[in-house]
Amino acid sequence: MDSNLPLQHTNTYTLTAAGCNAQSELAPAQLVQHVIETATDHADRLGLGYDRLARDGSLWVLSRVAMEMTRYPRLGERYSLTTWVENYNRHFAERNFEIRLDSTAEVLGYVRTIWVGIDMHTRRPANLAKVAGLFDTTLDRPCPMTKQGKIRVSTTPQACHSYTFRVSDIDCNRHVNSARYVELVLNQLDMSSYDTFYLHRFEIEYRHEAHYGDHVEVCSTFMESDDSLVTAIMHRDKEVCVARAFMQPRHTSIATQAILTLATS
Amino acid sequence: MDSNLPLQHTNTYTLTAAGCNAQSELAPAQLVQHVIETATDHADRLGLGYDRLARDGSLWVLSRVAMEMTRYPRLGERYSLTTWVENYNRHFAERNFEIRLDSTAEVLGYVRTIWVGIDMHTRRPANLAKVAGLFDTTLDRPCPMTKQGKIRVSTTPQACHSYTFRVSDIDCNRHVNSARYVELVLNQLDMSSYDTFYLHRFEIEYRHEAHYGDHVEVCSTFMESDDSLVTAIMHRDKEVCVARAFMQPRHTSIATQAILTLATS
Repeated sequence: MDSNLPLQHTNTYTLTAAGCNAQSELAPAQLVQHVIETATDHADRLGLGYDRLARDGSLWVLSRVAMEMTRYPRLGERYSLTTWVENYNRHFAERNFEIRLDSTAEVLGYVRTIWVGIDMHTRRPANLAKVAGLFDTTLDRPCPMTKQGKIRVSTTPQACHSYTFRVSDIDCNRHVNSARYVELVLNQLDMSSYDTFYLHRFEIEYRHEAHYGDHVEVCSTFMESDDSLVTAIMHRDKEVCVARAFMQPRHTSIATQAILTLATS
Repeated sequence: MDSNLPLQHTNTYTLTAAGCNAQSELAPAQLVQHVIETATDHADRLGLGYDRLARDGSLWVLSRVAMEMTRYPRLGERYSLTTWVENYNRHFAERNFEIRLDSTAEVLGYVRTIWVGIDMHTRRPANLAKVAGLFDTTLDRPCPMTKQGKIRVSTTPQACHSYTFRVSDIDCNRHVNSARYVELVLNQLDMSSYDTFYLHRFEIEYRHEAHYGDHVEVCSTFMESDDSLVTAIMHRDKEVCVARAFMQPRHTSIATQAILTLATS
C-alpha cells in the first residue's frame, strides 16, 4: 500500500446569490451535486475513479444518499466537504462526508453515501474485489450520523404530481441527474413549509434509472409513525427512487403552531 | 477616478461530470448562472454591486442575455468568463463577457447582457446617474457579437407545454431563477435535436417576474424568416419572458438530412 494515498479529500465552495435557494441557503439538491463532485475528485486522486473502473468494463453508480444537517450554508458563506471511504465490499463502497463552515470550522452536517460498482453493459453488480488496491483506501474515521434505514412507501399517497423528464434533467450518462430527483422530491412541500421548517435529515435510494421522455408520478405521504414525509417517484409500476424527509422548525418558538403543507397541483 | 479600478474581471470554472448535460457539455442555462455570478463578483469588486445600490434603495435586475457560441466547454475542460462594462446610461448597464478555453486560450463565444437598476420598492426603473463613480467603470473593449434584436412572438405557437413553478425554481429574491427560464425554453426541443445540433445563438428578454406557484405556458414557433425558434413563457396574458434560439448542425455533413423537432407532451 502506498502510504502517500490521500485517504481524505476536501472541496471548498462559496454560496453565491446565483446558487442559493429561496431561503438564501444552499439547496439540498445542490449539496448532492457537491457530494457527487467531491466523491469523483477523491476517487480520481486515489486512481479508483471512473477511468480505472472503465478498464474492467465497470462504473460507479450512486445508490443511496443520507444527509443530516444542523443548518445549511448561507449566502456568501464559504464551506467545505471532506470525504473518506468507511468501507468497501465486493459490490459497494460506503463513502462519508463532513460539511464545515470555512470561517469557524463549525460542523454543519454529515452525508453518508453508497456507491455500487456495476457492469457497464449488463448493468448488473460488478465484482469490486478485482480492482487492485481498492480495499486499502478506507479510513478509520467515525461518521456520527445514523445509517440510512429501509424506506417503506405508502400505498395511499396524499399528494401526487406528474412530471415528464426533459433535456435539462438528463446527465452525461443519459440518465436523469441524481440531484434532479432530489428537487422533484423536495418540491412536494410548498414554499411556506421551507420558510418555517428546514430539511434536517433526508434519505434517498435510487432504484431504477429514468430516461429522457419518461413520464413519472411523484407521490408523497406523511408518516405518523416517525414524522417523516415519504416520497416515491414512480415510472409506471416501477419505483425510480424512494426518499424520506425529516423537517425541523427553524426556531423552537414556532414549533407548536406551524405545519407542513404539500404543494398543490 | 481611481486608476486601480479592475475594469475587467475573470472567473474560471472546470466542467465536472456532475455539472454537464447529456452531450457532455456545459449547459447554456449553466452558462447563464456563470454570467450572473461573474457579473456579481465584478460589480462587488468595483464597489457597485447589490450592497452599493441597496444604499439608494435600488437593485440590479438582469433584463436581457444574448450569447453566441462556437462551441461549449466539454467535460473536464477548464474555461473562463471575462467580463467588462461597455456602457452605462441613466437606467441600464451593458455588460459583456468573453468565454475562453483555459488550455489554449481559444475563444469559445461571447455574451451580451443588459442590467437594469430598479427601485426595490416600486419595482420601477431607478436613476443610476445618482450612483457616484458608476460611469467611470466602462472599458473600451470590443465585443464582436451582434447586439440582441427585438423578439417578435408568434400568435400561433406550434408547441405549448404547461409548467408550475415549484420551490426548486425560486431564487433568493423570491422570483423564478433566471437560468431556470432558459432551461424551460430550451426544453421545448427534444433530445435528438441537441444530439445533432448545438445552440449557436440564444437571446432572452425577461419582461415580467414570475413567482412560486405561477402556472405558465411555454409556447414555441419555428420562424421561417430567420430559421430561429421563438419561445414565449406566458403567465395568463403576460409575457414572463421571450427568447429566440438559433441552432447549427454539429457537423456540416449532417446538415442536409437533419431536422429540429419539438418535444412532445
